[in-house]
Formats: sequence, structure tokens, C-alpha cells
Amino acid sequence: MNIALDVMGGDYAPHEIVGGAILAAREYGITISLVGKPESIEQELIKHDTAGLKLPIVAASEVIEMHDKPATAVRNKKDSSMVVACRLVKSGEAQAFVTAGNTGGALTAGILHIGRMKGIQRPALITPFPTQHGFCTLLDVGANADVKPEHLQQFAVMGTIYARRIMNITNPTVRILSNGEEQGKGNQLVLDAAQLLAQTPGVSFQGNIEGRDVIAGLADVVITDGFTGNVLIKTAEGMVKLFRSVLMEELKASPLTSIGAMLSKPAFSRMARRLDDSEFGGAVLMGLSNVLVVGHGKSNANAIRHAIRVAKQSIESKMVEEVQGGIHEIAASGSDTLLLQEIG
Amino acid sequence: MNIALDVMGGDYAPHEIVGGAILAAREYGITISLVGKPESIEQELIKHDTAGLKLPIVAASEVIEMHDKPATAVRNKKDSSMVVACRLVKSGEAQAFVTAGNTGGALTAGILHIGRMKGIQRPALITPFPTQHGFCTLLDVGANADVKPEHLQQFAVMGTIYARRIMNITNPTVRILSNGEEQGKGNQLVLDAAQLLAQTPGVSFQGNIEGRDVIAGLADVVITDGFTGNVLIKTAEGMVKLFRSVLMEELKASPLTSIGAMLSKPAFSRMARRLDDSEFGGAVLMGLSNVLVVGHGKSNANAIRHAIRVAKQSIESKMVEEVQGGIHEIAASGSDTLLLQEIG
Repeated sequence: MNIALDVMGGDYAPHEIVGGAILAAREYGITISLVGKPESIEQELIKHDTAGLKLPIVAASEVIEMHDKPATAVRNKKDSSMVVACRLVKSGEAQAFVTAGNTGGALTAGILHIGRMKGIQRPALITPFPTQHGFCTLLDVGANADVKPEHLQQFAVMGTIYARRIMNITNPTVRILSNGEEQGKGNQLVLDAAQLLAQTPGVSFQGNIEGRDVIAGLADVVITDGFTGNVLIKTAEGMVKLFRSVLMEELKASPLTSIGAMLSKPAFSRMARRLDDSEFGGAVLMGLSNVLVVGHGKSNANAIRHAIRVAKQSIESKMVEEVQGGIHEIAASGSDTLLLQEIG
Repeated sequence: MNIALDVMGGDYAPHEIVGGAILAAREYGITISLVGKPESIEQELIKHDTAGLKLPIVAASEVIEMHDKPATAVRNKKDSSMVVACRLVKSGEAQAFVTAGNTGGALTAGILHIGRMKGIQRPALITPFPTQHGFCTLLDVGANADVKPEHLQQFAVMGTIYARRIMNITNPTVRILSNGEEQGKGNQLVLDAAQLLAQTPGVSFQGNIEGRDVIAGLADVVITDGFTGNVLIKTAEGMVKLFRSVLMEELKASPLTSIGAMLSKPAFSRMARRLDDSEFGGAVLMGLSNVLVVGHGKSNANAIRHAIRVAKQSIESKMVEEVQGGIHEIAASGSDTLLLQEIG
């Protein structure tokens, strides 16, 4: 197995990215192609003992920066680490592409240079999301700001297979994010999609779910458009920050609570780790003909290791092939012909 | 000043609702009409010293329950506390309606029995939302699942006036919730609305805002459709619960951190109070010809007192008249004619 890693993408690139590659190569024994500027990569590799690890360097002279406009950057920077890594996957040399760089850039490079899976209209970003019971599978968290009901139907199939293969849930339940749990609540998109989802083969659709019940853990898979999904994960991220800062402020406000805070420190660290998205393993852009994993911009070595782990699990479990089968099944069942009649 | 209070609505009605009315009547010296079943109200009043307080009982024999379908319930339960309270406002006997009952029921009763403000197409639910710097003004949080750009323009005017009158911000900045802060990010609704907002008189529009920056406090007013706004506030609510439960679990996990937790308790209580929405004062349904405040279903007496405080401030600051003026100004500026040309 060979995973193409964009060494130049991310706030802490190349240092933490190379660090993560070394952790993953050691733990999983797989080949990780380090794509980027050779001199930068070598400077990092030299700091570690990499004897016996399979870490070939693949040269790429350009970098798609965090502030670059995705479409323009992917078109103009033909020798960027992202584009070179995607070509490595397209050619069959690597089986997955992992990056912590510009998310829009990664999606664009993936769609243009790896290509869509046959039958998939809109690839979607899938991420594990923390709940009271562990994690749920959430998609789309940002690839598609505007979607149609039939896209959400495909998301449900992709989410179900991700939950099965990556989260190890045998029969995942699927709900659609809405502004109320009752049937009949929702915007027009949700109302139209709900009808379609109820008759989708291979999907255990259970109706609507509200934001708070996503976090309460009341569904294994939660589907939504990329606009709303993005608002949800960023709101959650903002709330974790708010909670931490209010807590720290209040703990420091009196001598007694300051002592309490000192004694409680191990609990705070454990809590931070449980809510820390560096453990989540990044988001998968599902719906391409190969695996693409996008880590958070602030990924450290551990986050990169997890992103590589997700790519490895996806390849091993033949997730792409399984999604292809699921999409084929929807088409065969005729539920999208019905859709065409209904939506017009 | 007379405020019509639905004593029968809310998870802790009538006990906490009457309690809140007494707190508010004592603190603000205003009349609060207690609308509901007289015997239930009297049973509660008898527990308190209400000498000198202006708390007339207005009989209503029916109750719109939490699980009732709003449209059906408002139509069928003509003698419900919600409908009777709205009629009290319509007739001019009271100047505002406050409830912690079924939100959909309150909106429907308000629109049907108090009536829309002239020129307002869609009344919106406005709520203060906690941030790193205090609170921002967020709307719509649930009244309209599907909106058009011109509705968002009216929301911006209503939010600006609310922020000025209730949050005491002289020149509030307005941003639109999106899946990225850069111009050009957003779904079609956001893209169309942004153009319109930039040319809206009396609104200091500053572009897009992401979920996490709403909480970071980077805008005074945040506008969005009622679907996304509802997802945002419920996600935030869920995250507060998740954070608390993870923290408590981790604190109890070892003897040392348990002692730490005991010492830290006052800080936890202060933190809870800062994030507790019973202090927020409930949501205002803005765009009716009078003031309507909807408290959270789990409102306690303190939350009801704050909801009444918001109603009182709204009346005193002539918020309804000011919104009417703002809407008139948009119409006069011709920015909605422009809209008609653009949107078609």
C-alpha cells in the first residue's frame, strides 16, 4: 500500500506532516510517499531515525497556500504538492491522497485530477463528530453549499458505508439534520429528501434530527448539505473554545478555585483529548474514484497519523468499491426515477 | 404598561411562570396579566406575598400543549391562553405577549391574532447568543425554514434595531452566517443576500461570518435563515451539555481530581450561569405589530423575569415603531426594486 501525503499543506507543514508520516510508517508498515519540496522534506527527515521505513520523496516545486483561491491555484500550480499527489493516485502508484492543506484546493485537485466515482454527482466531505456516546458520522461538512434531494440520498449511502467500515457500526442508523425532530419539520430540501431517503435501499433512515440530538448521539450517520454541516462543525468548535475560556477565567477568579483547578488538571487534559479533533482522523472526501483524506489545517503529527490511518482503513475495507455498489443499487431500485417524477 | 403572560406554557408551568411574573412585577412595577386557568393561577399566587403587585388574572380555559401541531391548535383552541393573550394585545389592553410554551404555536398565534407589521414579509425570531465578549444578536433562529434574500435584508434591519435597543450597541455591525468568511463563499441564498445587504440603508454590513467566529464575538448582529439559525443554537446547546458531562466524568475519574472538582465548584457554578440561557431573556418574534417574546420551554422563574424585561425594554424603546421606520426606509431607497430586477 502506498499513500501520497502532501507534505507542504497545513499550518505546521512540513515539520508536523513529516512527523506524522514517520509515526504512521512505523506503526502501520506501509509506504508513504512524501510529496513536496525535496530539500524541506530532507531537512525534516534528518531529525528522525527513519531506518527501515518506506518514505520515498516525490518532488513538487509549488505549494497551494491556505489563502489561495482553489480553482485558480489548482489550474495554475501544476507542479504543486497537491496536484502531483493526486496524479500519483490517478496513475495507480498510490492508492490514497492525504493532505492538511487548503480544503477547497484539495477538493478541487481531487475532483479534477483523481476524478469522480461513476454515478456520484457530488462528492461529500465526511467527518467523525464527537457525541455523548463516542462519535457519529457527519456529512457533508463543506464540499457542497447547495445540494438537491438526490445528492442527499447519495450522501446517505456514502455515510452508511463509512460508518460501517471506519466506525465499525454494523447497521448504522441515518437521520437528516433539521430544525425539528418531528416529521414535516424542515426546509423544502429536507422535506423532499426525507421522502426519498425512506425508500433508499441499504439505508436505515430514521427521520429528522436536531443539532442537540446529533451531539446527544441519537444517530450513527447524520446527513445534511455542506453549508449547514459546515455551520454545525464550526459552531461546535467555537463552543469548545468558549467553554474552555470561560472555565479557565472562572477558575482563576479566586484562590480556592485556582487550587481546585491545579488538582483537576489531569481531568482537564483528558477532557481536551476527548474533544480534540486531532484524534478524529480528518475528513474523507467520498465520491472520488480513490480515497482522499483532508486533515484540519492545524493538524499536528498525531492528527496526520490518524488521517493516514483512515486512508489505510478505507483502502483495506474497499470502501470505494462498496460505495460504487451502493450507488448502483439505488439506480437499479428505480428510486431516483421516482425522484425525477416528484421533483420535476 | 401591561404585559400579557401565558401562564400555562412551558415545561414548568404554571409554577415557575407565576413565580417569574411576581419577580418581574415587583422589580419593574408594571402590570402583568396572568392568562390561563384561574384556579391553577390562584393556587400559585397564594404561595407568595403579592401585596401591592399588579397581577390581574385573565381566564382562558384551554392550553396549547408542547406536542400540539401549531396551526391546528391555534385554529381549534380559540380559548387557549396563547390566543386569549394575543387578543389582549390586539385590542390594546396589553402591549406585549410573553410565553414559554410551544414556539410554533406562539408564532402562529402571534401572526394570526396580533398580526404582521406593515411591510414585513416574514417575522423572525431574534435571540441574544453567548460569545467570548458577551452576546451577539442572532436571527432568524427558527421562524422561517426557507427564506429569500429580501427577507434576510429585513432581518438585518430588525437585528440592527434590536441590538441598538435591547443590547445597547450604538452602531451594531451585521454579518451573514456562511460556510466561509471570504466574499464569494456561501450557498446561493447567502451570495444573493450579500449583494443586497451591502446597499441597505441603516445597516452596517461587514460580509460573511463562520460559526466559530459568531461565538468568538466578531459581529454584533448575525443574520441567517431560520433553518440554519436553529441548527446553530441547538448545536451550541448540545455542546454545552457534552462539555459539562465530559468534564464531570473526567473529574470523577480519580480521587485527586475529585477533590479539585470540589474546590472548583464555585467556578463551575459561575460558568454555568454565564452560559445559561435563562439569563438571555428569550427570543423576540420581531415583525409583528406588537412585541412577542418566546422563552425556552424549560424556563424557570428567572428566565420568565428576563423575558418580561425584554418585552418591557422593547415597548419602552418603541422598537416596533423604529423597525417600521427602517423597513419604510429600505422601500424608499429603492434597494428592493433593485432586488426585484436582480432576482427576477
